[in-house]
Amino acid sequence: MPEFLTLLPPDKARSLLLSHLSHQISDSEIIDVPSSLGRILAEDIIAPHPLPDFQRSTVDGYAVRAGDTHGASDSLPSYINLIGEVPMGDAPAFEISSGQCALIHTGGMLPDGADAVVMLEYTQSVQKHEIEIFRAVAEGENLIRVGEDVAQGQTIQAKGRLMRPAEIGGLMALGILTVRVVRKPQVGLISTGDEVIEPSQAPRPGQVRDVNSFTLGALVENSGGIPKLYGIVPDDFDTLKNAAAKALSECDMAIITAGSSASTRDMTADVIRSLGEPGVLVHGINTRPGKPTILGACNGKAVIGLPGNPVSALVNGYLFVVPVVEKLLGALPRPKATRFARLTVNISSQAGREDWWPVKLIANGEAKIENLEADPIFGKSNLIFTLAVADGLLRIPPDATGLSAGEIVEIQLL
Amino acid sequence: MPEFLTLLPPDKARSLLLSHLSHQISDSEIIDVPSSLGRILAEDIIAPHPLPDFQRSTVDGYAVRAGDTHGASDSLPSYINLIGEVPMGDAPAFEISSGQCALIHTGGMLPDGADAVVMLEYTQSVQKHEIEIFRAVAEGENLIRVGEDVAQGQTIQAKGRLMRPAEIGGLMALGILTVRVVRKPQVGLISTGDEVIEPSQAPRPGQVRDVNSFTLGALVENSGGIPKLYGIVPDDFDTLKNAAAKALSECDMAIITAGSSASTRDMTADVIRSLGEPGVLVHGINTRPGKPTILGACNGKAVIGLPGNPVSALVNGYLFVVPVVEKLLGALPRPKATRFARLTVNISSQAGREDWWPVKLIANGEAKIENLEADPIFGKSNLIFTLAVADGLLRIPPDATGLSAGEIVEIQLL
Repeated sequence: MPEFLTLLPPDKARSLLLSHLSHQISDSEIIDVPSSLGRILAEDIIAPHPLPDFQRSTVDGYAVRAGDTHGASDSLPSYINLIGEVPMGDAPAFEISSGQCALIHTGGMLPDGADAVVMLEYTQSVQKHEIEIFRAVAEGENLIRVGEDVAQGQTIQAKGRLMRPAEIGGLMALGILTVRVVRKPQVGLISTGDEVIEPSQAPRPGQVRDVNSFTLGALVENSGGIPKLYGIVPDDFDTLKNAAAKALSECDMAIITAGSSASTRDMTADVIRSLGEPGVLVHGINTRPGKPTILGACNGKAVIGLPGNPVSALVNGYLFVVPVVEKLLGALPRPKATRFARLTVNISSQAGREDWWPVKLIANGEAKIENLEADPIFGKSNLIFTLAVADGLLRIPPDATGLSAGEIVEIQLL
Repeated sequence: MPEFLTLLPPDKARSLLLSHLSHQISDSEIIDVPSSLGRILAEDIIAPHPLPDFQRSTVDGYAVRAGDTHGASDSLPSYINLIGEVPMGDAPAFEISSGQCALIHTGGMLPDGADAVVMLEYTQSVQKHEIEIFRAVAEGENLIRVGEDVAQGQTIQAKGRLMRPAEIGGLMALGILTVRVVRKPQVGLISTGDEVIEPSQAPRPGQVRDVNSFTLGALVENSGGIPKLYGIVPDDFDTLKNAAAKALSECDMAIITAGSSASTRDMTADVIRSLGEPGVLVHGINTRPGKPTILGACNGKAVIGLPGNPVSALVNGYLFVVPVVEKLLGALPRPKATRFARLTVNISSQAGREDWWPVKLIANGEAKIENLEADPIFGKSNLIFTLAVADGLLRIPPDATGLSAGEIVEIQLL
C-alpha cells in the first residue's frame, strides 16, 4: 500500500487540513437570546449601558456615610439618625447627610449622599430613629458601583463565543433580547460500499447496515452542525464523484465513509483529487484506529475520507471532523471535556503511532483522580458496541510504547 | 436569621432532597433513532439478532483453513489453491476444502469451510491459481465471529442510558429505527422581587432586569429538561403561593428565585411549606455562594428556592437543579465534565463551608495537568459577567481553609 509510506501524526495532519480551509460561513441569523443555547456568536456584543446602572447594596443593613462610622466598635458604637427605608425597585426619595442613615435591603438603590452600607448584624436599633453601629465601614463597602459588572461600551461577548446559560443571562440583564449567531455548518455525509445497505432494509448474507451516516451525523449535530445525508453510493467512480460533488456544492464540507475493501478506499482518494485543488492532503495517518483516513481540501472546503469500520470512523470523526466544524463556526477555543483517571491495566502500543482506546470510567468513592479508574474496552475496531458502552477515549501518545497499570491518564469524554 | 442556624453541607442537602422525591416521569415517547441525540432511554434495548450475523474478515487477504497454514514461513511457504474471490455484499457461491483458499476483502463474508484469513502482505501469487503463504494463522484469526459485537437477545442499552453518537449507530446497525425515550421533564420557573422587571422593559432607577429565569431556563434545557417560565411575581404571599401552586401542578418541579431582600427570601420558605408535605427540607446551605438556598419537597415534587443574585442562583442551579432533572429523567450516572488544573493564586476559605469560585482555564503548551492554569475570577457574587467569562467552577471542600497557588485542583466545566 504505497499511499501509506509517509504516515503523518494526527496533530500534524489536522493542522495541515485546517490550514487549507479558506471556506468560511459568512451568513448568520438573528435569533432570540433565550433560544441561543449552544450557538456561536457572529459578532461582538457591546454593553449598551453600564451594569448595574445604579449603586446597589449587596447586604441587608444601613446606608451610611463611611466617615460617620470611623472608630465604631462594640465598646464604643457610633450613634446615627435613621431617616427612612429604601424601597425595593425604586429610587429613594431622600438624601443621606452626615450623621444620618437609611434602612436598605440587598439589591436596594443607595441614596444620594451615602457611600457605604453597614451590615444589619453589626447594628442595633436603640430608639425609633437611632441606630447603634458597632463596626466601621470603608467607603464603597458592601455595595456594587455603577458599571462594576460591565461598563457602558465594553465588549461583553466576543465573536466566536459559545452561548451558555451565563452568557444568555448576561445579555438579558442588559436588555439585549436578540443576537446574531453563525449559521450552522452543513456537513454532507456519503457512505460507500457494495455491502452497505440502508438500516431499514433486512440484510442478506454478506450485507451490513449503514452505521457511519448516523454516528457521524449525530457527532456533527453535537458539534453545532447540521448533517445532510446523501445515502449509500455504490462502488463506482463516476457515481461517487457525482454524489461527492453535489454534497460539496450544497454543504460546507463533505465526508465519505469508505466501504471496507481496499478498492473503495482508493476510489475515495481519486474522487477527492477530482473535486478541486489541492485535493488529497493526507493519505494515511499514524494512528489506531484510523490509519486509512484521508484528509482533503477542494477549493477551500474540507473533504474527509473515513475508514468504513464504525469505531474507526467515529474516533476519526472526533479527531478531524469536529475541528473542521468548529473552524467553520469560527468558534473560540474552549477547554475540552476530559477526565484524568488511573489506568487499570497495561496497554502496549507501537512507538510513533498514536492510539485511541475506548474506556469505561469507574468511580470509587470521593472525587479524586486516584479514585477514578479508566478501564480499556478491548475489542476489534469493527465493533460499534465497544464505543456504545465507553465513557471516553484514552490517547496513547506517539512517543510512548505503552502505558502501565496505575498510571494517571487523560480521557477525552465521549 | 434563625433559619440559618443549622447549615447543611451541599452533598448532604442534595441527598436529603433527592431522597424525598417520589415523583417520577412515567410517560415516554417513541422517536426516530437518528433524532434521539441527548435523550434518555425509557426501556432496555434487546438485540433482535446477532451482530455481525455472518463471519466477516477484518483484513484484505485469503480465506483459508488454518490447519493448511501450519508451519508456513518465509523459507518454507505453504502452497494453496485459489478457487475464487468473495464478492462484497453477497454470500460466496463456493466452499473452501482442505488445500484451498479464496481472495477476501475487509468486511467480506467468510466462505463455508474456511476458519481464518491470511493477510495479503504475508502471501504471494505464484501462478494464476496458486498462492504462497509465508505465515501460519490460528483458527479464528483476522475475522469477526457471528455475535462477537452483540449476541441475539443481549441487552445492548439499558433504560436510563443517554443517547450519544455511538448509541445511535449501534441501534441503526441492528435495524432498530425508533426508540422509546423519557418525556423531557418540565421545570416551572418563577422570579420574585419588587425590583425585578422583564428584560424587554427599560429599568427605572432601583429596578433590574430578570436574569435568573433565563440562566436557569438554559441550564434546564442543557440538562435535558424543558423550562416553563411563569414570569415575575410581586412580593406578596398569596400571589406567589398561587403562582407556585400552578407551576408545581403543571410541571415536574418548580424553582422560585427570590428577590434580594430578606423578606422575600422568608416568603419563599413559607410558600414552599404551604404547597405540600413535608415542605421545606433544608433552609440554608453551608456554601458560598448560595447560603440562602431553600430545598423543599411537596408531595414528592421538588420545589427549590434560589437566592436572587444571578451567580448564586446559577451556581446553585448546577448543584441542586441539575441532579433533580437527572433523577426525573431516570438517567444513569455519567462522569461529569471536569478538568484538573494548576491554581494560579492562593484562595482562602472558611473551614466547614464549601466554596465555588468561577475560574478561567488557560492552556500553556501541551495537554498536561501542570500546563493548564486555573485562574479564579474574583468578583462579588452579584456580577453575572464573572460567570459569563468563566470556563468552570472550582470547588473548595468544606475541610479546607483555602487552597494554595500551584496546587492541582478539579474544575467543573460550565
